[in-house]
Amino acid sequence: MNIQEIIIKKRDKRELTKEEIDYFIEEYTKGNITDYHAAALIMAIYLNGMTEEETTNLTLAMAYSGDTIDLSPISKNIVDKHSTGGVGDKITLVLMPIVASLGIPVVKMSGRGLGYTGGTADKLESIPGYKIGLDINEIEKNVKDIGICLASQTANLAPADKKIYALRDAIGCVDSIPLIASSIMSKKIASGANKIVLEVMTGNGAFMKNIEEATVLSEQMKAIGKLAGMEVICVLTRMNEPLGKSVGNALEVIEATECLKGNISDDVKEVVCKLGAQILKLSGYGDDEEANKRKIEEQIYNRKRL
Amino acid sequence: MNIQEIIIKKRDKRELTKEEIDYFIEEYTKGNITDYHAAALIMAIYLNGMTEEETTNLTLAMAYSGDTIDLSPISKNIVDKHSTGGVGDKITLVLMPIVASLGIPVVKMSGRGLGYTGGTADKLESIPGYKIGLDINEIEKNVKDIGICLASQTANLAPADKKIYALRDAIGCVDSIPLIASSIMSKKIASGANKIVLEVMTGNGAFMKNIEEATVLSEQMKAIGKLAGMEVICVLTRMNEPLGKSVGNALEVIEATECLKGNISDDVKEVVCKLGAQILKLSGYGDDEEANKRKIEEQIYNRKRL
Repeated sequence: MNIQEIIIKKRDKRELTKEEIDYFIEEYTKGNITDYHAAALIMAIYLNGMTEEETTNLTLAMAYSGDTIDLSPISKNIVDKHSTGGVGDKITLVLMPIVASLGIPVVKMSGRGLGYTGGTADKLESIPGYKIGLDINEIEKNVKDIGICLASQTANLAPADKKIYALRDAIGCVDSIPLIASSIMSKKIASGANKIVLEVMTGNGAFMKNIEEATVLSEQMKAIGKLAGMEVICVLTRMNEPLGKSVGNALEVIEATECLKGNISDDVKEVVCKLGAQILKLSGYGDDEEANKRKIEEQIYNRKRL
Repeated sequence: MNIQEIIIKKRDKRELTKEEIDYFIEEYTKGNITDYHAAALIMAIYLNGMTEEETTNLTLAMAYSGDTIDLSPISKNIVDKHSTGGVGDKITLVLMPIVASLGIPVVKMSGRGLGYTGGTADKLESIPGYKIGLDINEIEKNVKDIGICLASQTANLAPADKKIYALRDAIGCVDSIPLIASSIMSKKIASGANKIVLEVMTGNGAFMKNIEEATVLSEQMKAIGKLAGMEVICVLTRMNEPLGKSVGNALEVIEATECLKGNISDDVKEVVCKLGAQILKLSGYGDDEEANKRKIEEQIYNRKRL
C-alpha cells in the first residue's frame, strides 16, 4: 500500500477501503507520510467527498490514533456538547458550568479556532494562568474533584485529528462535511464521551450555510455515532449574527462570567436552554424537554452551585 | 495576497489572475510557500482545471522563475523537440544527433521520469561519466563546439517547474493537461528555443489516452506558444506498445547507438523521420515534408556526420 495510490484513488472519486484509511492515518500520525501528501489527499476528499462508510472509518482511525480516555469509572453517562462553530459563540463557557452545577459530570475537549470562528480553547487561554493542556490523569482528577473539566485536546488524544485539523485550516479545506463530522466525532470518541449533543449552526456566519447542508451533517454525525455505539442528538441553531454582546477571546470570557451571574442576553439564553435540555435528557434527567429547559433557565438565575 | 485565498479560489472553480499565479510561483520558488500549500493547489488545479489564460500565465511565471538561456547568438532558429512521454521512447537519443549531423544546432533540456515513463535525462545518466547537469556557459559552449547539447534542467532553469514537476509526481497529479502544457512550455521558453516540434503520444502507454485529449493538449500548447511568440508544430503518434526493442535506461541508450549505426526498427524510424521532417521544416530546410523525411532517413543510413 502506498499513499500515492490512495491519493489517486480519491482523486478519481473511488471509495477508499478501511485498510487504506487506517494506513493513511497511522503513517501520517507517525510522520511517515508528509504534509504535502496529506494536503493533496485532503483536497481530493474536499472536492470529491466521502461515503458514510469512509467517513466512519476515518473517524475511528483518528479516534484511536493516540490515547483514549476511559470515563466509565466516573459515570456511565458522559454527555458532551459540541458546536460546529460560529462567531461570538461562548455557549460552552455558560452551559457546561450550569450542567455541572446540577451534578452531571462534564468533560469537554475543546478545539482551537477554525477558519474565522473562535475556539473555546483559545478563549479559555485568555484567562491568566488557566492551564488548558491537561493530561489524562489531570482530566480525570478534575471531573472527580469539581465535576467539570474543560480542556484542550492533549498531545496524545486523537493526534491524527490534531494534525489534519491544522492542515485543513492552512489549505482552505475547512467546510467539508465528512472532514467536519469525522473531526468532531473522533475527538468525542477519544475523550470518553458516549452521548453527544451536537449543535449545528446554520447561516452566513456558520460553515453550514443552509438547512440542507446542516441536515446532511447531522445525519452523518448520527450515522457515525450509531456505528461507534454513541447516542447523538443534533440541534440546529441560527448563526446570522454574532451570539451575545461580544466577540473576542477575553471579551467572551467576561461575557460568559456575566451570564453565569444572570446578566445573560436573550439569544445566548435561548441556545443554552435548548442545548441544556437535551443534555439533561441524555443524562437521564427526564424526557420532558420543556421542563428541562425551565430547569436550566432557573439554574442560570438562582446561582445555586454545588 | 495569501496562498490560502488562492487555494480556496481554485478549489471553488474560480479563475486565478496573473498576479495570483505570479505570487504563487515566486513565493513557492523562494520557499515562502510550503509544499503542502502547493500540493493542495495542484490537486485543486488537477480536479478543477485551468483556462487557457491561466495556463499561459502559469507557463510564463515558471519560465521566468530562474535563469533563461539566450541562444540567439548561435542561431535565430533554435528548434526543440519534445515528447509527452511513453514507454521505450528513445527518439531524442536518435533524432537529435541526426538533426545535428545536418548542421542544425540542437539544444535540448530533458526531463526525468514522470509517472511510469522514462526520462531522457535518466537514460543519459546510465552512460558512465556523462555529465547531465550543465550550467548555461557549458550548454552554450557545447552547441558552439559540437553543434548539439543534451542536458538536464539546470538548477536555475525554470526552478519553479522543477519543484512542481517533482510534487506532481509525488501526489499523483501527473496527467493534467494544463499542468503538462505549462511544464513543457516553460522549460522550452527558459531554455532559449523559439520553435518546437511537440510529439503528443496517444494510447494506453501514454498520458493522453485518446485523440480527443491529445488534440486538447496540442491546442493548448499552440495557444501558449502563440502568446509567447513561439512557433509550435504538434505531431500525434501512437503509444500502445513500447517503441523499439528495449525498455530501460541503459538498454535504450545501447539501442539508440545501434539505431545511429543503421540498425533501427521500423517503428523508431517512422517516428524519427516524422518528427525530423518537421524540425527541418521549422529550421528553414524546406516545406516539402516527404523530401525532409527522405533526408532524415538517408542520414540514418549513410552515417555521414559533420
